[in-house]
Amino acid sequence: MKRRIYLQMRSWEEALTVFFERIKPSRYDKTEIIPVKKALGRVTAAPIFARLSSPHYHSAAMDGVALEAQVTFGASEDRPKKLRVGQEAFFVDTGDPLPPGTDAVIMIEEVHQVDVQTVEIMRAAFPWQHVRTVGEDLVASELILPQGHLITPADLGALLAGGILELPVKRRPRVAVIPTGDEVIPPEEILTREPREGEIVDVNSTIIGGLITEAGGEFAPHPIVRDDPQELKEAIFSASRAEHDVIVVNAGSSAGSEDYTASIVDELGEVLVHGVSIMPGKPTLLGVVDERPIIGIPGYPVSATLSCELFVRPLIAAMLGCAAPKRERIRVVSTRRLPSKLGVEEFVRVRVGRVGERVVATPLPRGSGVITSLTRADAIIRIPRLIEGVEEGEETEAELLVGKASIEHTVVIIGSHDLALDLLASWVKKDDPTLTLSSNHVGSLEGIVSLQKGYAHMAGSHLLDPATGEYNIPYIRKYLSGVGVKIIHLAYRQQGFILPRGNPQGIKVLSDLARDGIRFINRQRGSGTRVLLDYLLEKDGIDTAQISGYGEEEFTHLAVAVAVASGRADVGLGIFGAAKALDLDFVPLEQEQYDLIIPQAFFDDPQVRKVVEVLRSEEFRAQIEGLGGYDPSRMGEEVAV
Amino acid sequence: MKRRIYLQMRSWEEALTVFFERIKPSRYDKTEIIPVKKALGRVTAAPIFARLSSPHYHSAAMDGVALEAQVTFGASEDRPKKLRVGQEAFFVDTGDPLPPGTDAVIMIEEVHQVDVQTVEIMRAAFPWQHVRTVGEDLVASELILPQGHLITPADLGALLAGGILELPVKRRPRVAVIPTGDEVIPPEEILTREPREGEIVDVNSTIIGGLITEAGGEFAPHPIVRDDPQELKEAIFSASRAEHDVIVVNAGSSAGSEDYTASIVDELGEVLVHGVSIMPGKPTLLGVVDERPIIGIPGYPVSATLSCELFVRPLIAAMLGCAAPKRERIRVVSTRRLPSKLGVEEFVRVRVGRVGERVVATPLPRGSGVITSLTRADAIIRIPRLIEGVEEGEETEAELLVGKASIEHTVVIIGSHDLALDLLASWVKKDDPTLTLSSNHVGSLEGIVSLQKGYAHMAGSHLLDPATGEYNIPYIRKYLSGVGVKIIHLAYRQQGFILPRGNPQGIKVLSDLARDGIRFINRQRGSGTRVLLDYLLEKDGIDTAQISGYGEEEFTHLAVAVAVASGRADVGLGIFGAAKALDLDFVPLEQEQYDLIIPQAFFDDPQVRKVVEVLRSEEFRAQIEGLGGYDPSRMGEEVAV
Repeated sequence: MKRRIYLQMRSWEEALTVFFERIKPSRYDKTEIIPVKKALGRVTAAPIFARLSSPHYHSAAMDGVALEAQVTFGASEDRPKKLRVGQEAFFVDTGDPLPPGTDAVIMIEEVHQVDVQTVEIMRAAFPWQHVRTVGEDLVASELILPQGHLITPADLGALLAGGILELPVKRRPRVAVIPTGDEVIPPEEILTREPREGEIVDVNSTIIGGLITEAGGEFAPHPIVRDDPQELKEAIFSASRAEHDVIVVNAGSSAGSEDYTASIVDELGEVLVHGVSIMPGKPTLLGVVDERPIIGIPGYPVSATLSCELFVRPLIAAMLGCAAPKRERIRVVSTRRLPSKLGVEEFVRVRVGRVGERVVATPLPRGSGVITSLTRADAIIRIPRLIEGVEEGEETEAELLVGKASIEHTVVIIGSHDLALDLLASWVKKDDPTLTLSSNHVGSLEGIVSLQKGYAHMAGSHLLDPATGEYNIPYIRKYLSGVGVKIIHLAYRQQGFILPRGNPQGIKVLSDLARDGIRFINRQRGSGTRVLLDYLLEKDGIDTAQISGYGEEEFTHLAVAVAVASGRADVGLGIFGAAKALDLDFVPLEQEQYDLIIPQAFFDDPQVRKVVEVLRSEEFRAQIEGLGGYDPSRMGEEVAV
Repeated sequence: MKRRIYLQMRSWEEALTVFFERIKPSRYDKTEIIPVKKALGRVTAAPIFARLSSPHYHSAAMDGVALEAQVTFGASEDRPKKLRVGQEAFFVDTGDPLPPGTDAVIMIEEVHQVDVQTVEIMRAAFPWQHVRTVGEDLVASELILPQGHLITPADLGALLAGGILELPVKRRPRVAVIPTGDEVIPPEEILTREPREGEIVDVNSTIIGGLITEAGGEFAPHPIVRDDPQELKEAIFSASRAEHDVIVVNAGSSAGSEDYTASIVDELGEVLVHGVSIMPGKPTLLGVVDERPIIGIPGYPVSATLSCELFVRPLIAAMLGCAAPKRERIRVVSTRRLPSKLGVEEFVRVRVGRVGERVVATPLPRGSGVITSLTRADAIIRIPRLIEGVEEGEETEAELLVGKASIEHTVVIIGSHDLALDLLASWVKKDDPTLTLSSNHVGSLEGIVSLQKGYAHMAGSHLLDPATGEYNIPYIRKYLSGVGVKIIHLAYRQQGFILPRGNPQGIKVLSDLARDGIRFINRQRGSGTRVLLDYLLEKDGIDTAQISGYGEEEFTHLAVAVAVASGRADVGLGIFGAAKALDLDFVPLEQEQYDLIIPQAFFDDPQVRKVVEVLRSEEFRAQIEGLGGYDPSRMGEEVAV
């Protein structure tokens, strides 16, 4: 099969318009009859009229006495009227039918019972007072719900009240999801064995299925199809013949050598759009086969998710006749520069939280393979096609993925990453489920600088000052001179060499890094670990140019450990926890001090105090102690600035 | 059992605080292990860490050629490097593992294939370029999701990518719903027979169940319990012993003679709150039995729904550790005066739509028995306890029950009610599912006055001018002098006597209304039907004082028909359709003209035009013709003002 090029690249709005004009999703008219009790969240397929009136009889609206209003005329406190119980006056409870000949109810509080047979009335009643007359709520034949109505819990009650026990609703659009690729394996396979190199676990079918379910569609998973044009053609053809309303092909919609979707759709039907100017999600294909919409979704999980959000969800919503729910928008300040390519609408995932007067947004990794950039995101900044990006500190708009309230209940921590912070976040949530501790990993130095800019409530830092041997305080003096801060000690941590199991190269001391054939993996400039390394190298007089791999930087301890575990490097500098997590060897070098720096302006914030409180609990200290590599004996103590 | 009085009445906020402080819902810790594929929308019960790294091997991030970066150093357009395929350079597709010894990928577009064995490289590659290294997305041991996290579709993907196929989630709180009342019957009973007088169909269990499901709880319906304190006590006791986390008792929480809930909760546990200063919903009870929360919910459907929204939903959300989703708030202008009792927070259901610059809100009936006031509501205006109400034309806040977008896609029609308008609304929705025609029934005259105030896009009117015999135009001249309008004719309608089947009283002419023993049911002042009646009575010289029931007013044709059908009245004046809907007799009196009045300012609004377009379609005309009692021959024509 020949390498294809994209059709004219279209914007998202254009693409959706072209697609919908050809597909006409609002004409979707598949109907099924279901019981009212199962109808929550479904959409009516016809106007529904009441079969019974509600109430279906004149009923007392109060506990009291039912009577004919006329007999009470003239009654007053001075001249009460006496009525015979069971003949002129009848005790009724709310909901009771009015006895024959009565047309009003007097509240029990206003009735004076003289004896068993007699009551006294002090005030005239008017006809139909405190009576729910027939049909007050619903009249038989009256419209209960119009066509195309999304059914709520109260609607269920109105239907039952109107004597309706089943009703026609729009059938949930059935969406066949066809995963493709020789390398793709079902998630179940890794239950019993580890995945092999080159195998990719099919996570997309489950993501797409979840998005379809959320949109009100019915997810019809298809077995994995090999990279064989004939096999894919048959799968699409049979899906279009079956009871499916939409076909989604996952991956193969790009323009690579094994991307067959476009030519097959071209052959079986019509390609409407191939290539959309969005990032991630560019290689999206929209077409029609046998009068059914077909959508080719790119393979990277983030691209797949966004492409689904932008095309599959609106399609299902339009088929059901509901507007796709719009996300709430807020103004945020970006804590980083976000360059973006002209001509492409970019979707940047960010974490957000209110810090002082502003809601700050810190971008997550932008790669389309990084699914955690979606799971950790609180919001998405859409950078329009004709904008080259967003500057650091610039206010811009973001679409919220979480409830607006949660932004107010977020403590933003920025700076160095530490495993203890992940655990702290979980402990905080256990203590107060509405509170989120949102970590942003940028390294110690950038964390401190972020405090100065008002981008966070606290910063995690382990910056050694080579001149004094002191941790953090010299940096605070330098970068946070105008900002009053408190320092809360987290723990002393063991830093050392992370090494393959058994330490095959026998690396023990710093000078081993400069040995021939040893590949090192470094941390980024401004991280506490990098500062420590450079300090130790200088002290021992080792030239960084002698260290192979000194220029290769990772951003976290775990990433360094991974580089060692995967054979990319022979050694890295990092904390004990990272080595332990990946079952690697560890040679301790130095104990360092890790602190949380909190501007005084935030120290009395109840949410910040809550975080510090958890940090100071004996239970939390015990868990950190148990991790190994930490000395938390002074955890939670305030360090004198 | 003795009549009880409420404990100290509490505000909603106080009541919820007292309840939560005793119950501590955030301590809810029931857990279950479920497969990832079923975990959408569930809440994690523990932090979840990755078991595998993702990717689990160094993989090509592009289609291209994999090689060792070092061999490309020095390559340029002038001095390309030739590499041997299969030895130094290896063709790879996106996702393929890097062949041993390689550490970079060059995009296929930048590779020049010289022959089968040779490729040429024009530019140096840097190490790990276009490579997804192991753990780029997730590192084994890394936190995927914290505890207390609401699981999204992308989260499902991240879990599978991290090698997690099942996980611990919070068990959905099981909520037992116990319906009570001698008069209550299950909805299924009316499948085979009509309900009898005094029987009330249990619609509340289904409504409450729907609200529980929406909130993330598990609805455990209980059979109906008689009004017997012993039986109710046993039901509550056994529910508290079973695997239920919350108990809801529906009705019986008030202070009536058969309201046992309070004394039983008092006996088995503790009553925390009895009586909340909200309307509807006052007789709510909050308590604890056997350390389980118990909530007594009032019996009227609207009260039951609001009480559930305000107490059951937040409880479930807090047990799951999620904040209950907050409704979006908007500013609206009330088209009516909304008086409200001091000391009570009132929840007024309203229909809303944008008319010009303002979003207008028209209140629905305020009775707590009128469930259609919930099903038709787009928003709720909460009138605070210390405010005596909202004035007509005053701006106030409303909580949206529908998406914000739908407010912009609503055409507001106000005035006289006609069955054809319900059908028109359904036809409009069929044609454009995003467009809503929102009808507010206030009578012809008030409809015209509302146009003057800018409260609607159009008004439906059939007002006869007794002086000229002309319809609508004289009123438009009088009340809309400054407003340019167009008049679009809807239909001529037959007005006449609505009578019990067989016309037992032989009512044929207007003077029959004044006969002894004939009970009439009237329409409200300002309605076209009332104007017509008064005109005809005056013409025939009949004194309204002679007509028994002249002072009793209903607000719609159907309500008049119901009054006749239920025996409340012997005759009413109304349209043929209303008589036909309830299978009543009809004696025609007059043909009248029903028009839609549209201010010119709105006539070119595309949404208003769409409504007029549907009105002008042959298919719609045919349906109205088929109803009987209408002459739609000039439907859609513009009437000269």
